[in-house]
Amino acid sequence: MSAAKTDPGNFFEDFAVGQVIEHATPRTVTEGDRALYGAIYPTRFALPSSAEFASSIGLPAHPVEELIGFHIAFGKTVPDVSLNAVANLGYAECRFHVPVVPGDTLRTRSEVIGLKENSNGRAGVVWVRSTATNQRGEVAIDWARWVMVHKRDAGAPAPETVVPSLAQSVAAEDLVVPPGLDFSSYDVAAAGSPHRFGDYEVGERIDHVDGVTLTDAEHMMATRLWQNTAKVHFNTEARPDGNRLVYGGHVISLARALSFNGLANAQLVAAINAGAHVAPAFAGDTLYAWSEVLDKAEVDAPGVGALRLRLVATKGRDETMTLRTDDGTYADGVLLDLDYWAFVPR
Amino acid sequence: MSAAKTDPGNFFEDFAVGQVIEHATPRTVTEGDRALYGAIYPTRFALPSSAEFASSIGLPAHPVEELIGFHIAFGKTVPDVSLNAVANLGYAECRFHVPVVPGDTLRTRSEVIGLKENSNGRAGVVWVRSTATNQRGEVAIDWARWVMVHKRDAGAPAPETVVPSLAQSVAAEDLVVPPGLDFSSYDVAAAGSPHRFGDYEVGERIDHVDGVTLTDAEHMMATRLWQNTAKVHFNTEARPDGNRLVYGGHVISLARALSFNGLANAQLVAAINAGAHVAPAFAGDTLYAWSEVLDKAEVDAPGVGALRLRLVATKGRDETMTLRTDDGTYADGVLLDLDYWAFVPR
Amino acid sequence: MSAAKTDPGNFFEDFAVGQVIEHATPRTVTEGDRALYGAIYPTRFALPSSAEFASSIGLPAHPVEELIGFHIAFGKTVPDVSLNAVANLGYAECRFHVPVVPGDTLRTRSEVIGLKENSNGRAGVVWVRSTATNQRGEVAIDWARWVMVHKRDAGAPAPETVVPSLAQSVAAEDLVVPPGLDFSSYDVAAAGSPHRFGDYEVGERIDHVDGVTLTDAEHMMATRLWQNTAKVHFNTEARPDGNRLVYGGHVISLARALSFNGLANAQLVAAINAGAHVAPAFAGDTLYAWSEVLDKAEVDAPGVGALRLRLVATKGRDETMTLRTDDGTYADGVLLDLDYWAFVPR
Repeated sequence: MSAAKTDPGNFFEDFAVGQVIEHATPRTVTEGDRALYGAIYPTRFALPSSAEFASSIGLPAHPVEELIGFHIAFGKTVPDVSLNAVANLGYAECRFHVPVVPGDTLRTRSEVIGLKENSNGRAGVVWVRSTATNQRGEVAIDWARWVMVHKRDAGAPAPETVVPSLAQSVAAEDLVVPPGLDFSSYDVAAAGSPHRFGDYEVGERIDHVDGVTLTDAEHMMATRLWQNTAKVHFNTEARPDGNRLVYGGHVISLARALSFNGLANAQLVAAINAGAHVAPAFAGDTLYAWSEVLDKAEVDAPGVGALRLRLVATKGRDETMTLRTDDGTYADGVLLDLDYWAFVPR
Repeated sequence: MSAAKTDPGNFFEDFAVGQVIEHATPRTVTEGDRALYGAIYPTRFALPSSAEFASSIGLPAHPVEELIGFHIAFGKTVPDVSLNAVANLGYAECRFHVPVVPGDTLRTRSEVIGLKENSNGRAGVVWVRSTATNQRGEVAIDWARWVMVHKRDAGAPAPETVVPSLAQSVAAEDLVVPPGLDFSSYDVAAAGSPHRFGDYEVGERIDHVDGVTLTDAEHMMATRLWQNTAKVHFNTEARPDGNRLVYGGHVISLARALSFNGLANAQLVAAINAGAHVAPAFAGDTLYAWSEVLDKAEVDAPGVGALRLRLVATKGRDETMTLRTDDGTYADGVLLDLDYWAFVPR
Repeated sequence: MSAAKTDPGNFFEDFAVGQVIEHATPRTVTEGDRALYGAIYPTRFALPSSAEFASSIGLPAHPVEELIGFHIAFGKTVPDVSLNAVANLGYAECRFHVPVVPGDTLRTRSEVIGLKENSNGRAGVVWVRSTATNQRGEVAIDWARWVMVHKRDAGAPAPETVVPSLAQSVAAEDLVVPPGLDFSSYDVAAAGSPHRFGDYEVGERIDHVDGVTLTDAEHMMATRLWQNTAKVHFNTEARPDGNRLVYGGHVISLARALSFNGLANAQLVAAINAGAHVAPAFAGDTLYAWSEVLDKAEVDAPGVGALRLRLVATKGRDETMTLRTDDGTYADGVLLDLDYWAFVPR
């Protein structure tokens, strides 16, 4: 009875296709979040750094980095969706709609869109589509995610298998341009790089050169800021090896920040097409990043183009920028393989 | 002469009953404090997290957690009251009056209300009643505290012994309800738990399940944020064992945050009745918490009830939730024994 | 080609006297910066801590600590000026003009004012004068700095040697008093010390007594907050000894904060005359500080005086406060020797 009021999270058999979960703890975003993000990640993109720059590119307010909104919105889903996860398997169709600005309060709601029990009957894959809305009810971010979740009771019957159809990538024409965005008088000196849309070629790889060695205090502070409660991130007694596992989103934000050096004009994340956390990261690891240009598209806004980028985080620097070995598996040292769209000036 | 302008703090013989001390460094609370608190403690209570939730329960502004105000107000007293402390012995009669909101500036004033020299003549107990006020002169928090303080000169004469009479607990009818508080349309989905006033029984114990392993960087950042200057928290050369001692308030905030899992609707701390820092905590320790319902009371505000709770922090998880051994001493692993009132929806 | 879009920074031969560099990444200062600064440094000066105190001394808004502005403004210059530095050699003529308040956006521009190639032809000294302006184009801070920078190509021809003439100290009459500053009803109780201008004597030394042991997480968070990208601060693989080098500005801010205990009324930094980072600092080091009064001056503002102070940070406490040994070199343990002006109440 002692734990009767604590939340055990949902197990595989607790989910049903069509089920809607209203996640707890609405969260007001503040300038404190922006400052902490800047203390934890070496971000230098001009837009989130400068209210003046935001105004100069047509934005009515000063948005925080898209990943701040994403981590907050995602964190809300953890207690209900992935507290009993075996593994996070993937993301898809993540789009950033209305920019998140300080003062906004985000809530997240998820709908179960797929279920597939594992053949061993001890766990299963749950697909959810999650939507974060602001205090005006506008959609800020939505995304699909799938995760393998333990069963509470291996004897529980398997649900009908439903595997949703998810796009390999968000189509360029479905990218949402923030109202007002106008890169026609974009200040490259303020942004820190002369490289525009036309300077990037599909297939090009960019070594972001810089590295950051992880500490436990930093990744825990970041993960808490997003109210992400997965115990493996905080508790040395929760894993046999006594290490705290770094939240995958921490690696994403770190790699995105490092990518400034080479992609300084990739000012806004427009969509996340796919993401794989290939290997775990721990305090003491030194993270590096490289990017590959996967696609390019023009966008219906003044001076705005979109680059589809692969962002790869590695443990230790790999100047050869090798994603996979000859047998198709990820190369040693690859931690993250993220596929996203960013808006850049044409 | 070199240290002539540095503050040595007060010693036991510097205090006199009736003496009033205006503590230095008024402090303006900001949204930055809220963000840092959320980065350092795994708090998920809907009220401090969401301005929208605060508004939905009738509050005219978005208060920060009561413990933010408490730590700031308390920190001001350290240079004058406890810089030369042997030990912090207890708290009593702590009440939260006007909620603290970003933009408020807190000052603290203390009155010496009791003195008792130790029989060995080398130290003595000082009782103070401290009051934190905001920039409008309204009382935000007041509390009594007693602490054993070194004498500068063992030969100084003992003062007359005055031991103040302090209540075992703040009476339910003396709890201060924030103006406007109305739980009649309380959103349990947003708050993260269906358990209301009526669901808790006196004597019930709740295992909060989750644990957090401490780091030095985090507890130092928190303690500095409160401008608490006790050197044992920051300086490995200040203690023979070379460890930095974790500020007791850090353990309180961590345990309170962990208590969300089981007490998600204990939205506001209304009073602290008593508190004992039973054993020291250090980086590397993994903290857990459990609670016991000590009392219940109805409150004269729409839909509002009060739970009197014992909050126990332990080093290592104790699923048996044992407070004391058979001989009446605290059980191994108990770090904190805090007795407080919280407002919950009826 | 992989690194073709990453910024390699400038090498000695890339600089020319008269060259003007507009540094990237304008940065909006927020209350989040103030909070983080207070979490990372044990600062207790009443002015940056309290909006009420700021108002009581005539300031129209609540400025952040001058060093927050300095670190941000300085950080912008790193990618262009000192990414390939052998050593930071000095500062001079740093003045704080218009106070920096939350909401201000800072940009920095540097002009090359001197060049001198080393006799070995492998590096050279670059002098720059940098100016940080706010969104209204007002000068917030300006300073001169010189740094030894690697040559990319040892065979590149040496430039004509130009060594600028820089003042040993900012003249007292050139100090900029913030508009409105009025210490005539200065509240010493709120400030935490009774010691005013008249209580300090030239030649006096003050042992600040307290120490802080450094952690990697804290210095990295601070340095990132200033968007300072020098890799030695973040990457254990960037140095042969595997240690992260603490940013020199971290030591400055820590020492300044510690100096509160003895110099609580040195409310504003008015100018930095000179600064030497004598030895590197690393996590695990315990820092202490002492000050020497170098000069005093009256200032043309009500109740305002200026103290010229030497601020010395040491590894381990040196109660003898010895700056140099008999042979004129810095004493063991000295990390920082900073010469600055502060405004104090008369």
